[in-house]
Amino acid sequence: MQTDEQDTIFSRIIRGEIPCHRLYEDDHVLAFLDVGPLSRGHLLVIPKEARAFLHQLSDDSAAAIGRVLPRIARALMEATGATAYNVLQNNGREAHQEVMHVHFHVIPKHEDGSGLKFEWNSGTLSEGEGLAERIRTHIRED
Amino acid sequence: MQTDEQDTIFSRIIRGEIPCHRLYEDDHVLAFLDVGPLSRGHLLVIPKEARAFLHQLSDDSAAAIGRVLPRIARALMEATGATAYNVLQNNGREAHQEVMHVHFHVIPKHEDGSGLKFEWNSGTLSEGEGLAERIRTHIRED
Repeated sequence: MQTDEQDTIFSRIIRGEIPCHRLYEDDHVLAFLDVGPLSRGHLLVIPKEARAFLHQLSDDSAAAIGRVLPRIARALMEATGATAYNVLQNNGREAHQEVMHVHFHVIPKHEDGSGLKFEWNSGTLSEGEGLAERIRTHIRED
Repeated sequence: MQTDEQDTIFSRIIRGEIPCHRLYEDDHVLAFLDVGPLSRGHLLVIPKEARAFLHQLSDDSAAAIGRVLPRIARALMEATGATAYNVLQNNGREAHQEVMHVHFHVIPKHEDGSGLKFEWNSGTLSEGEGLAERIRTHIRED
């Protein structure tokens, strides 16, 4: 995976060089409306820490984003009247990431059907415990 | 939105009444392999706090999940060799939520194309600052 750490449009938004419709800001986090929304109220929550991918984020940045996601989602639903929503965070171009700075999409689902649309072709878990042990080993070694 | 707080399969997994391929556990969080994976290594990260929707989660639970997501994603990529991944969290049946206990999917994207597939029909932001101000008002009143 490419670790593309160049200055992105989000770093420029954080520095105030590019305007945004700012929703929330603290020491670690900025939230603003997505300018290419999938539905009314589609917003982005980003760390101020400039990292391309979620697995590169510091504990502090990641915890700060986690902490505010429920508050922001609550306000979004109250303000838009949406009845459901998806949170989506993409890592890598193959996973449809476009801006190489970590961002969480919060995408309301509205009665007109607008929002995130995805397929769900689930399989069955075949090699469960062997795979689980490999993942656990890497978590322990982290 | 229905606030469906009955005992779910995830509460039973947390209590150890139903087995799982456990990957990570701390005071607030449990991670385990999804038994109906979209791709090899598809896993779930859930709070021990039993809440149906993200906007109902306590700050502590939400921060604890945020903090461990990067570590778990890192281990998942190292263990599976995936080059990209999506994090998805669904709220409400209209948003394809099936189990009414908050869960974050971490879904690797593999070279065979397996993983999360979604559409991205973005629009343009028409009523930006008015909408932003309504959301900000709800965040302030929270």
